[in-house]
Amino acid sequence: MRKGLFITFEGADGCGKTTQQGLCAKYLEEKGVEVLLSREPGATALGVKLREILLHYPDPVASECETFLYLADRAQHIQEKIIPALEEGKIILCDRHTDSNIAYQGYGRGIDIDKVKYLNDIAVAGVKPDITFVFDVDSEIAQERVGKTKDRLESLGIEFHKKVRNGYLEIAKNEPNRVHVINSNLGIEEVFAQVKKVLDEKVLEK
Amino acid sequence: MRKGLFITFEGADGCGKTTQQGLCAKYLEEKGVEVLLSREPGATALGVKLREILLHYPDPVASECETFLYLADRAQHIQEKIIPALEEGKIILCDRHTDSNIAYQGYGRGIDIDKVKYLNDIAVAGVKPDITFVFDVDSEIAQERVGKTKDRLESLGIEFHKKVRNGYLEIAKNEPNRVHVINSNLGIEEVFAQVKKVLDEKVLEK
Repeated sequence: MRKGLFITFEGADGCGKTTQQGLCAKYLEEKGVEVLLSREPGATALGVKLREILLHYPDPVASECETFLYLADRAQHIQEKIIPALEEGKIILCDRHTDSNIAYQGYGRGIDIDKVKYLNDIAVAGVKPDITFVFDVDSEIAQERVGKTKDRLESLGIEFHKKVRNGYLEIAKNEPNRVHVINSNLGIEEVFAQVKKVLDEKVLEK
Repeated sequence: MRKGLFITFEGADGCGKTTQQGLCAKYLEEKGVEVLLSREPGATALGVKLREILLHYPDPVASECETFLYLADRAQHIQEKIIPALEEGKIILCDRHTDSNIAYQGYGRGIDIDKVKYLNDIAVAGVKPDITFVFDVDSEIAQERVGKTKDRLESLGIEFHKKVRNGYLEIAKNEPNRVHVINSNLGIEEVFAQVKKVLDEKVLEK
């Protein structure tokens, strides 16, 4: 029996989504809501091992391999953490989920998007986010924010990130009820004001 | 340009396929053939990490997660090792490949077989085995041979292994030109005599 809410935080590296996830958790907890912070990849013990490979493997990773690793992480996360938390009525705040896969592997790397969706449908076993925030930021600003702490994905270059950004905007256009695009070229408080508005309307007013 | 041959060794744990793979390599090398020994999971540095998770992870692994991990390993293996070796004209002797996935996850665990095949088609990028040996052994004999050195998959019980065995026999029935069923209830030399016959006809006589 599903009772909770599944909220995902999406966007390019450097968009500020992890900071905003933390602010959401604080805000909701202050309102007495039970929150579970999570992330992909790497929310389970198994996922931590996969995250290490995905972000720091030194040699070329075949693109199909990369796709399957994200899916393996996601499948384990859904079964081990998300489904039980939803059944307990928790609000899950998850840093990256299926839309990352569609934006990065589909729009970014050019893998057929219907194929990526089909694969994700297998991984998520029917569980989909109720609310998704896409933190939209100019690619140049994101790159500056990421600075020198680049991991493997973040070092792919500005053209790749523009494709990813475009992918997220397409996803939002196709699912306007679920996906909320947040202007993230602003300061942390101004960004959170936009997020808070959605939380007030869709989570706390319910 | 593809010039080599891709030969896979399949069967239940305890069927003797790894021993036979070694004997094949020795036999072919004595005939002057350049051989590459490989295995799945775990033929690449990335795959070794995945193999460790697949065989020794202490907690429950979601079945979809398990499927994706095998596919990730396979995709990396195909791109990093198999395709280059085929282009160099080598004979690849691979301990487990796609048919393991179909037999174990499809027939064994009951995941839709067409889905498993679709996923494998993505992973292998058009590369398929030229010759496959299925080492067929009574499930009770396989279990005895495996004995106390059971890893995670091997500890799943005799009923599961019977389903897997049946799966392999179905695969062989559907692709008789590629798949050779080897009676492996016999001694090592008698088993190898059957394998040698196929090698003589399909590899050395060519």
